[in-house]
Amino acid sequence: MNNFTYKNPTEIIFGKGTIGEIGSRVPRDVPVMFVYGGGSIKRNGVYEQVVAALKSHRVIEFPGIEPNPTCETCLRAVDVVRQQKIGFLLAVGGGSVIDGAKFIAAAACYPGTDPWEILRTHGACVKAALPVGTVLTLPATGTESNGNAVISRKATAEKLHFTADVSFPVFSVLDPQTTFTLPAKQIRNGVVDAFVHVLEQYLTYSVAAPLQDRMAEAILQTLVEVAPRTLASPQDYDARASFMWCATLALNNLIACGVPQDWTTHMIGHELTAFYGLDHAETLAVVLPGVWTHQLAHKRSKLEQYGRRVWAAGGAEAAVEATEKFFNSLGMPTRLKDHGIAAEEAAGRVQARFAERKAAYGEHGDVTAEAAAAILRSRA
Amino acid sequence: MNNFTYKNPTEIIFGKGTIGEIGSRVPRDVPVMFVYGGGSIKRNGVYEQVVAALKSHRVIEFPGIEPNPTCETCLRAVDVVRQQKIGFLLAVGGGSVIDGAKFIAAAACYPGTDPWEILRTHGACVKAALPVGTVLTLPATGTESNGNAVISRKATAEKLHFTADVSFPVFSVLDPQTTFTLPAKQIRNGVVDAFVHVLEQYLTYSVAAPLQDRMAEAILQTLVEVAPRTLASPQDYDARASFMWCATLALNNLIACGVPQDWTTHMIGHELTAFYGLDHAETLAVVLPGVWTHQLAHKRSKLEQYGRRVWAAGGAEAAVEATEKFFNSLGMPTRLKDHGIAAEEAAGRVQARFAERKAAYGEHGDVTAEAAAAILRSRA
Repeated sequence: MNNFTYKNPTEIIFGKGTIGEIGSRVPRDVPVMFVYGGGSIKRNGVYEQVVAALKSHRVIEFPGIEPNPTCETCLRAVDVVRQQKIGFLLAVGGGSVIDGAKFIAAAACYPGTDPWEILRTHGACVKAALPVGTVLTLPATGTESNGNAVISRKATAEKLHFTADVSFPVFSVLDPQTTFTLPAKQIRNGVVDAFVHVLEQYLTYSVAAPLQDRMAEAILQTLVEVAPRTLASPQDYDARASFMWCATLALNNLIACGVPQDWTTHMIGHELTAFYGLDHAETLAVVLPGVWTHQLAHKRSKLEQYGRRVWAAGGAEAAVEATEKFFNSLGMPTRLKDHGIAAEEAAGRVQARFAERKAAYGEHGDVTAEAAAAILRSRA
Repeated sequence: MNNFTYKNPTEIIFGKGTIGEIGSRVPRDVPVMFVYGGGSIKRNGVYEQVVAALKSHRVIEFPGIEPNPTCETCLRAVDVVRQQKIGFLLAVGGGSVIDGAKFIAAAACYPGTDPWEILRTHGACVKAALPVGTVLTLPATGTESNGNAVISRKATAEKLHFTADVSFPVFSVLDPQTTFTLPAKQIRNGVVDAFVHVLEQYLTYSVAAPLQDRMAEAILQTLVEVAPRTLASPQDYDARASFMWCATLALNNLIACGVPQDWTTHMIGHELTAFYGLDHAETLAVVLPGVWTHQLAHKRSKLEQYGRRVWAAGGAEAAVEATEKFFNSLGMPTRLKDHGIAAEEAAGRVQARFAERKAAYGEHGDVTAEAAAAILRSRA
């Protein structure tokens, strides 16, 4: 097992009817920015619950955080934060809204001139941030209980992530009922996102960390079990609750303790979103089987364990196949052509971008620009 | 799944050679109380590592916290805390030392006249505590990453627990190497303690929480796998590291999220320690099979799942038997007579104590004084 440090200070408030709990947790002595997205929370009753819980607070709304939140929009919010002397951000929505709020909170405290530095340094320059609380309405990214955020910049078609200790939410409310009205596509995306988060931290090579392996497998097995149920019966509370808790634990740093991590699939996937506008999870489902096949020699032993324990499948190749079939069974395409993208073109664009960045991703640092191009060509 | 809140702010610093990390984490602007036990840390090099890491700090030593730490000893430490204006406690040792430090930290801030109230109210009256950091040298109780402590009072032969949000350690250092010189008996005890902690939170009845079940099973399976190895080869780093991480996750509140809990075995076990001086884990190994057999009707379904997944055993009775065999295989007795205790006498004493307390333990609140007596009689 590798050495590690682990700290996750976020308070999770989980269950039916828990949104009212924010009232006692959001401070009353500072103006609060209520950050949300395109208005779906006004259609599912969440907006009203939040407003009711904060009726004794000074609240300034900032709607309009887009899917794949942009630096441009968030910096407009930072102006408001400064003008209004905001002291707390409440993000209500999915991963994009929460990521946007984390960036606003860090950018508002950033002493330099260009807050995009936060992304360029992947958070290394973040020393302070305003406190953020969240009400999660879309289980997927795990951002409700980690210090990560992914932000896009329209001007340069970039999509980068940052991580900072000060960016963990103070609290996150997870009421599975808020997800009952989500379109099936977003649930499908959320399942794939959570599933691939686990795999990025698990499907590498063994470092004699059997508990971490089994905890990762626990999440994968549970997702395999509940995903079809929660897609078929959106109002099955227990299935939705299990999916929601899986998505949080998939990326709250716990299963990463003491083990190597990959993240190649995410790095390539972010480029597909930046260039072609694919949903984040759509990119993961396309790229992951390509990464595994390309890295089969390194990953064979772990793929065999994964196949055996999660799919009762024999052999590494069968494990890759079972995973792709699982994604397809959720209605998730796994080929570039399914999205109308020419593999050769995508390979060229990503190769150029990775070459510029001198990319060397993966648990062995051997996924270069050329390797990424080969992976994408294999996903035609 | 039941509603829950989950928050665990403790920073875990895990791995080889990590004790030096305390230097930057223990505050320098207040006197620090360095709390330890009977001096084993002076024989295994841990004492020197701590002293070296704190050479620029103002440190006051308080040795002599005993196994099953007593209120009497801890209150002497509280006097020193007040005299010396201690602002931080560093507990170095096993669960007893850490529990003792947590009680000292809470008692020093307790505004009433009798700090035993903290135990009598199980922590409800604890509103503040001095910060505590720990260096764990004996994996077992999970106290390094939770807000719990168990304290005994000699004067009345009582052993009670308390839990408080302010009692989570600020940080805990876990270097598996510090455990290499532990006697086999303490490792055996630690494995049983961690194993039973998981079972108290898992072996009840299903509330459609499959992820929590699988996470609990992950810890149990890993303990079954690594326990014989770590007993046979104390210096096998990986086995010891996995055992240590299992013991932490067994009782850091995570697997308890959204599920019913039992704790009958612990409640009866504490009385056996208070009356007969048995090691905590020894009491658990004796009592647990009795609780399960007594509560078989309620627990059958979960016992079957546990047997199938952890022991590949068919049926609830086989699961009970496999567990007792596992304890015995570690050299852990499971009968009262193995400890020279007359079952009838123990049953009588515990029944009287529970009756006084109007005990109604277990996930259904149906383990009364009479039930506890029947359980103990069955463990002759």
